[in-house]
Amino acid sequence: MVYVVGHKNPDTDSICSAIAYAELKKKLGVDAKPARLGDVNPETAFVLEKFGFEVPELIEDGEGKKLILVDHSDKAQSVDNIDKAEIVEIIDHHKIGDITTPNPIFFLAMPVGCTATVVKLLYDYYNVEIPKEIAGLLLSAILSDTVIFKSATTTDKDIKAAEELARIAGIADINTFGVQLKSKLSDVEKLTAEEIIKRDFKDFDMSGNKVGIGQIELVDIKMIEDRIDELLEKMREMKESGGYAGLFLMLTDIIKEGTLLLAVVDDESVVERAFGKPLENNRVWLDKVMSRKKEVVPPLESAYSS
Amino acid sequence: MVYVVGHKNPDTDSICSAIAYAELKKKLGVDAKPARLGDVNPETAFVLEKFGFEVPELIEDGEGKKLILVDHSDKAQSVDNIDKAEIVEIIDHHKIGDITTPNPIFFLAMPVGCTATVVKLLYDYYNVEIPKEIAGLLLSAILSDTVIFKSATTTDKDIKAAEELARIAGIADINTFGVQLKSKLSDVEKLTAEEIIKRDFKDFDMSGNKVGIGQIELVDIKMIEDRIDELLEKMREMKESGGYAGLFLMLTDIIKEGTLLLAVVDDESVVERAFGKPLENNRVWLDKVMSRKKEVVPPLESAYSS
Ligand SMILES: [Mn+2]
Ligand SMILES: [Mn+2]
Repeated sequence: MVYVVGHKNPDTDSICSAIAYAELKKKLGVDAKPARLGDVNPETAFVLEKFGFEVPELIEDGEGKKLILVDHSDKAQSVDNIDKAEIVEIIDHHKIGDITTPNPIFFLAMPVGCTATVVKLLYDYYNVEIPKEIAGLLLSAILSDTVIFKSATTTDKDIKAAEELARIAGIADINTFGVQLKSKLSDVEKLTAEEIIKRDFKDFDMSGNKVGIGQIELVDIKMIEDRIDELLEKMREMKESGGYAGLFLMLTDIIKEGTLLLAVVDDESVVERAFGKPLENNRVWLDKVMSRKKEVVPPLESAYSS
Repeated sequence: MVYVVGHKNPDTDSICSAIAYAELKKKLGVDAKPARLGDVNPETAFVLEKFGFEVPELIEDGEGKKLILVDHSDKAQSVDNIDKAEIVEIIDHHKIGDITTPNPIFFLAMPVGCTATVVKLLYDYYNVEIPKEIAGLLLSAILSDTVIFKSATTTDKDIKAAEELARIAGIADINTFGVQLKSKLSDVEKLTAEEIIKRDFKDFDMSGNKVGIGQIELVDIKMIEDRIDELLEKMREMKESGGYAGLFLMLTDIIKEGTLLLAVVDDESVVERAFGKPLENNRVWLDKVMSRKKEVVPPLESAYSS
């Protein structure tokens, strides 16, 4: 049996692509099962309920397991003991990470907005009909990852895939469904500062510096403005205890289309080198910036390497 | 402009897949050009001449270049200064190597016998007709890498691709063409010991040990038997000067289907742990073993890690 599993702090893409790709593998005769590496967020919970899926099984240790990785190819984002797992496939849309294998495997990464788009293309390639409910999952993942096509990571392939999936899933108004979906994550009132920071949080190694970057997408950034001091306080704490050189939180406004970046860093000049604007009071507004992967990680990486 | 380039010590797959994939990219509107990282071997020279292609441009430094890598995903096997190149795609059939990228790219690795098989599938995927001469190149690469389908790396996909390519290229008898092709590399008389060892030679890092493995395929291993002492002598020299923990040479008999493995190693027990048979006089016959990638590298890697 092989588990299909996304990254830690799973987002909707990591959960839905795991379910949909496990389903495809089963149709191709492989004994596959979706899994997850952490709690599902409210957006994902909404999607699973809407299309009638259970929350996948939680796995916490890769040792001895056969794994298909989706939505990541970096050890740091993968299951604990990934070095003791057997990785049999990787399906991704991020930069190529540091996972290596002792044997040849199927590895498909595409520079598109969402792993679900790649999974949709694989259903087509194998000529396997996409079930209505699976189409709903894949569409949701695309709308989530591309912030309803507003993220700079969005490609024509994502839009085309989403349109076909919406037709199969019977969803007439993609945009309205997308806003409904994204609003599930905007409900930050009941969350602690730590929960907000860790909602979608990833660790990176940038030229030897440990860097953590969280992101939360909001229908309106005003919803969180009066909690910024509280968030910064918690980020300082996490930076200390986690040994980070820099801790960042992207407060992304999906309607205004931009990100208020909060930063607690050893060397504040790294922000100006990365984005051409200085931090003021631990924050800087980045107009049009919506994608961590495409618009925040690469400039920070080159700032840290210079 | 982007260069499409295979690994160092190029084999027929690395050269032919580079030419064929550059051609496909051009048809898809990309300004692509094939390149190579070293001299072509007599088999490859025969193939290029037969199908009417020039030897691709030699490149020696990756700095500042845009590259599509074929037939490898390991830094050690790639162009010098690969860290200063921009890698825009990877097409491969080996284990996943240590190359990472700062941005998402197209990366397709498949567990098949030859990169040319993956390139053939990509022509099909993009619905681009394969020119007759390109089909000849791709067929040659498959016959070369799979040792006329005898290597353990051979899959149904390779055989199916080769049959279709032979039809396009107008080659009626695949097997006869394969033996003709492979015999070009059997002509070892005029080669020095060093040329034989380095003909198809790769470096590996196995649990911190520098390991080098060469391979030469022969229509009849007898052709080289009286030169084994000379080969071992040269291997001892190369081991010393190169700081290797182990230096191996596979003398592969493509008719008898097996490999006489020559080894000059710090710790001879590694061979018995890897292959279940001890070295005698720096050599051991491995029946049915024809593939470095699938039958020699993995057992050696686990022997070195234990
Ligand atoms: Mn994703
Ligand atoms: Mn190859």
